[in-house]
Amino acid sequence: MKEVAVIGVGMTNFGELWNKSIKDIFVEAALKAIDNAGVDHIDSMYIGTMSGGLFVGQEHIGAVMADYLGMNPVPATRVESACASGGTAFRQAYFEVASGSSEIVLASGVEKMTDGVDVTAALATAADQEYEVYNGVTFPGLYAMIANAHMHQYKTTREQLAAVAVKNHRNGKNNPNAQFRNEITIEQVLNSTLVADPLRLLDCSPVSDGGAAVILCSMELAKQFTDSPVRVIASAQASDTISLYERDSLTTLKAVSDAAAKAYKQAELKPDNIDIAEVHDCFTIAEIVVSEDLGFFEKGCGGAAVEEGKTSLEGQIPINTSGGLKSKGHPVGATGIAQIIELYEQLTGQAGKRQVKDARIGLAQNMGGSGASCTINILEAV
Amino acid sequence: MKEVAVIGVGMTNFGELWNKSIKDIFVEAALKAIDNAGVDHIDSMYIGTMSGGLFVGQEHIGAVMADYLGMNPVPATRVESACASGGTAFRQAYFEVASGSSEIVLASGVEKMTDGVDVTAALATAADQEYEVYNGVTFPGLYAMIANAHMHQYKTTREQLAAVAVKNHRNGKNNPNAQFRNEITIEQVLNSTLVADPLRLLDCSPVSDGGAAVILCSMELAKQFTDSPVRVIASAQASDTISLYERDSLTTLKAVSDAAAKAYKQAELKPDNIDIAEVHDCFTIAEIVVSEDLGFFEKGCGGAAVEEGKTSLEGQIPINTSGGLKSKGHPVGATGIAQIIELYEQLTGQAGKRQVKDARIGLAQNMGGSGASCTINILEAV
Repeated sequence: MKEVAVIGVGMTNFGELWNKSIKDIFVEAALKAIDNAGVDHIDSMYIGTMSGGLFVGQEHIGAVMADYLGMNPVPATRVESACASGGTAFRQAYFEVASGSSEIVLASGVEKMTDGVDVTAALATAADQEYEVYNGVTFPGLYAMIANAHMHQYKTTREQLAAVAVKNHRNGKNNPNAQFRNEITIEQVLNSTLVADPLRLLDCSPVSDGGAAVILCSMELAKQFTDSPVRVIASAQASDTISLYERDSLTTLKAVSDAAAKAYKQAELKPDNIDIAEVHDCFTIAEIVVSEDLGFFEKGCGGAAVEEGKTSLEGQIPINTSGGLKSKGHPVGATGIAQIIELYEQLTGQAGKRQVKDARIGLAQNMGGSGASCTINILEAV
Repeated sequence: MKEVAVIGVGMTNFGELWNKSIKDIFVEAALKAIDNAGVDHIDSMYIGTMSGGLFVGQEHIGAVMADYLGMNPVPATRVESACASGGTAFRQAYFEVASGSSEIVLASGVEKMTDGVDVTAALATAADQEYEVYNGVTFPGLYAMIANAHMHQYKTTREQLAAVAVKNHRNGKNNPNAQFRNEITIEQVLNSTLVADPLRLLDCSPVSDGGAAVILCSMELAKQFTDSPVRVIASAQASDTISLYERDSLTTLKAVSDAAAKAYKQAELKPDNIDIAEVHDCFTIAEIVVSEDLGFFEKGCGGAAVEEGKTSLEGQIPINTSGGLKSKGHPVGATGIAQIIELYEQLTGQAGKRQVKDARIGLAQNMGGSGASCTINILEAV
């Protein structure tokens, strides 16, 4: 099994990109990554997209994007795991390079959501259609149930949820690609429109357009292209029940802890070896639960941790230095790749005002639905 | 890079499965494959599905199927390349085993199409939405253009197109899983309803429900489970322009010849070393063009070859011994995996009345759209 490196990255701004099609967005991100890596070709490409069919009426996204990128006859494969599509696409590229089948592979994600007619309904196809969606629940409702359970069981407060959004906007302010670059206050979160009790508008990641791409190659080849490749030291994935009602507990996301256990084992690391983490804060409660399930904090202590600044840029484990899904934006398929990009920039010292000092090991946690799938990739500065 | 084997297979009947949901169909196929292989666990699973979103309103198919198969927390990833989704899913499983990341991996495909409201429109999302579909073309129209060009350039006849359907129904009659198990005549094809000139109803593969699954593991592990594993000696993929209008020629499918060149090189074989082939006969003309682009016949001679019986069960290179998409059915995501199953059954001498004598090397060619993506997998009896 070959060692795998990330050698270049590129992404579009995330936001409401009214003047760009899904093809434009993908091509912009992919060309930036290719240019950044300095490669003169790619052997294969993966595209994470949740629902080209429902958002823009276009399936067969792999072939479409290879064509518009001018890359025919390069193999191009679309991968989908709902909101974890990007993390999964990265993992497939990792396997292809690790197997020795290909040398240079592009892993990417793209989503064009603002053109969609009914985005909430399209997103809801990531939940169980027969037992959840048919009965009227959508994702804000599912995560609201998780939030209520966590608040009940662990005395997590409404203010602690808000603190996640406040921190992530503070980080996103310094991310030139972020959708929302404004700071917000606890009061603004608490006074924003109620979406699904207790979650309010500013607890929710936005609907976004955006694309992101990274270039992977074997560690031995990486040295030809860069002095600062980033090594992939773990790539893990797990699944959990598609529906919340089937789970033993609402306050833990088992796919996250299962994938984390595998990733830590593969990397021979413990949670306190991780210097920075990008986690899937589709709703504020998600970041709190995930920060516990990754082992950064004891179960039930994630809310207090964010309130005490332990996950801030200067804290014990900076989380979502990019601004996270909340501030950076959440073009579903692109999110997992954008997480890898933030790790790459941090681990190579290119994160500007967001830079975490001496960041050497970073973890990206990307999940689909209400945690029915989860990928965890761990990267290390060389 | 580890050698990879197929050690077990399972599929549902293909057809109009009104009393089964997409979950039922998948689980039936997957359990049959697991049982057939005799494994007590799987490490990972892939599901090829073209459009769960448009056909049944369900994305996140990987997680859904892992759950309903009772396999949580096993990683489950959905792969999509339109009608080549199954072949692509097989290839991803191949990479994962070849890399040494996992030992036993399930590769599968499933589609539930008969519940769809507008199946032709959903299928058309595999073509370019902006330049093809917007102008009114759907897949019968695209393949009709290819047929007209081939008939004009190479004097391919209407009867030769019909001969593909007649041969495939003759084979499918002996496939217990086939959707149509009736023989048809040249006259019946020529007199069937005109769909898109020159293609008639009996030139077209049907709308189908169905699932198919195979179990892959490393060659060294395979010996623990079976005395007759089938070795994967090549897995290749290529892309071409998404739209027909961009191509230099309408009478060749470049993704097929590109993928074939790579596959033959990897396997160190030539076309005449192939004993049997399953090819993507979504329309009769497709089988003719593909049989040429795979190198079985000179360009322009594919029509005569089928008419002369060269691709029949007793011919020089039996093609679509399963009945092909035309007779066996074409539940889009499952098709590529069902091709692998036919090869496995032939190469292990389990194909009953369809058995090709001394078949040792088989090729499966699966393609998406009007050939914008193509996978070719070559298997060898051990």
